Amino acid sequence: MADHSEKHVTEDDKATPAKMRKLESGDAAEARDNFAGFKLIKVLNENTRNKCIFVHGSFEGSDDDAVVLMEKTPFDKQSISAMLTSTTDLKQVMQNDIYGVYTSSPPPDLNGINTTIIYPATDRHIMKYSAQQIYLINETAEEYQEITLPFIESQPFSLQWVYNILDKKAESDRIIFEDEDTDTGFILLPDMKWDEKLTENLYIIGICHKRGIRSLRDLGREHLPLLNNIAKKGKEAICTKYGVKENQLRVYLHYQPSYYHLHVHFTHVNFDAPGMNIGKAHLLLDVMENIEMQSDYYPKKTFTFTAKEKDPLYLKYKAAGKM
Amino acid sequence: MADHSEKHVTEDDKATPAKMRKLESGDAAEARDNFAGFKLIKVLNENTRNKCIFVHGSFEGSDDDAVVLMEKTPFDKQSISAMLTSTTDLKQVMQNDIYGVYTSSPPPDLNGINTTIIYPATDRHIMKYSAQQIYLINETAEEYQEITLPFIESQPFSLQWVYNILDKKAESDRIIFEDEDTDTGFILLPDMKWDEKLTENLYIIGICHKRGIRSLRDLGREHLPLLNNIAKKGKEAICTKYGVKENQLRVYLHYQPSYYHLHVHFTHVNFDAPGMNIGKAHLLLDVMENIEMQSDYYPKKTFTFTAKEKDPLYLKYKAAGKM
Repeated sequence: MADHSEKHVTEDDKATPAKMRKLESGDAAEARDNFAGFKLIKVLNENTRNKCIFVHGSFEGSDDDAVVLMEKTPFDKQSISAMLTSTTDLKQVMQNDIYGVYTSSPPPDLNGINTTIIYPATDRHIMKYSAQQIYLINETAEEYQEITLPFIESQPFSLQWVYNILDKKAESDRIIFEDEDTDTGFILLPDMKWDEKLTENLYIIGICHKRGIRSLRDLGREHLPLLNNIAKKGKEAICTKYGVKENQLRVYLHYQPSYYHLHVHFTHVNFDAPGMNIGKAHLLLDVMENIEMQSDYYPKKTFTFTAKEKDPLYLKYKAAGKM
Repeated sequence: MADHSEKHVTEDDKATPAKMRKLESGDAAEARDNFAGFKLIKVLNENTRNKCIFVHGSFEGSDDDAVVLMEKTPFDKQSISAMLTSTTDLKQVMQNDIYGVYTSSPPPDLNGINTTIIYPATDRHIMKYSAQQIYLINETAEEYQEITLPFIESQPFSLQWVYNILDKKAESDRIIFEDEDTDTGFILLPDMKWDEKLTENLYIIGICHKRGIRSLRDLGREHLPLLNNIAKKGKEAICTKYGVKENQLRVYLHYQPSYYHLHVHFTHVNFDAPGMNIGKAHLLLDVMENIEMQSDYYPKKTFTFTAKEKDPLYLKYKAAGKM
């Protein structure tokens, strides 16, 4: 897996236990048949929309910590017929005219829960899966110069993996489209969140060839040819390859981005992709219109974005007495 | 329930079967013990993120249609201990070092599925719960004048329920805060999507007293005092009443709005509220900054928004050869 799968971490990703596959130190635990001996210490986090819960506990007879990540499974079109039979019990909650509300209980094998048991778990795991308070930061042009830019420059955000892609030293087999122009060119490739199976979950990243454009903050009139080119040729290439219509593609940038080399997100309009909220995503079309209206729109703008209480950038704003 | 619960329908709402409680014609069906005799006709829609599925079928011995809406239940903090015991079977999928991936099968009574059976269902129900293609519309200033505005004016969008609130003829017991000024005043009340129980799901609407401002499109410099007032006093009132900090409130407007009388949404930053995506939501702070920069920013702007293939406004754009 390329390095940038680690960079594309968005808020919503934390609620997807299945993403975590990385090896760490510690001995392999033996398979368990059930949760016998489990002691709950604390519910770390939950998401009622995604139907996830993250729990901290331990197993009887050991002082080691355990973290349990559970996520209800999506319905399976293939097996829904098997669920809608006499083996699924119904308990009525209410009936109002033609509307009957029930709790249904399908056989357990048709209603499994995706579960990851991390055992023994470290403090780092417990922190990773704990709920964090989220705050909105309003970053003025001055605060960008005084707090955010020095923070970006002080961080060891290596962009080497991006340059490896642009130089065809890595992932060249994944490239969907390339315009090689050094000023207006870019490379399109599938985002790590997309398995390239369903067009309705399409998620493609366009990375510009030109180096040194950190983010939206750096954009001005001189970048309009680049932005226009990414918008036009990016959409065309995706429409040609995947048969998606132009008016079915959301095209946007993130602020703050997850890495500071200008890149554009293309997602299918039917896909409820993470990172499309206000306070994070900015439509490329709006960006171009704003710059056409006023070249220094983005250098001057007050950007609102969300940050978690343990995010280093949030801590910088807090230390500066801004939060 | 007030009329505007019907108006606050967003794309995401369709995936929440439990919302539907309204009476319609037809005889009450008797309670069912299970899905015996159910025949699947078609899966109408599903949402893998929310874990929902909507199914069209029928019951043996009848020609009537049935629509079944199912949604996996969120985990319950109170009963999670009961789930993590020896009665929940685990089936191992893989083990990698300290990470064990399983499918767990709790006892059926701890893992119910919220289910609504609409029976007999009409064609209207089937259409309502069917997947619809979504498109992005880019509405220029000219297209607003030529297509959208005539459409708004031709529609029987009654705003009487809004005026009833503003005149205290309805829902006056729900008002959280009021500024009575006829130019800059507004009323705050909880959105119908919020049950007022958990502050983390806080969703409050601010409705301006001044009539005739349809949407963001109509805003200019003359409305800055109104917008500033809603932003400032709205946040203060919410912070005072609910103990939420100012930097934990998202404050935004929708375009297109669900009704054409200017209103502002306040939601808790931890709440994954529907309708916060780009192409729908616009941060009030951005709106004020844009207007300060250029008074006719919004009348002139090209707005991007999503529409479903059966939305009347989408059909107008299609009829005009724009899609």
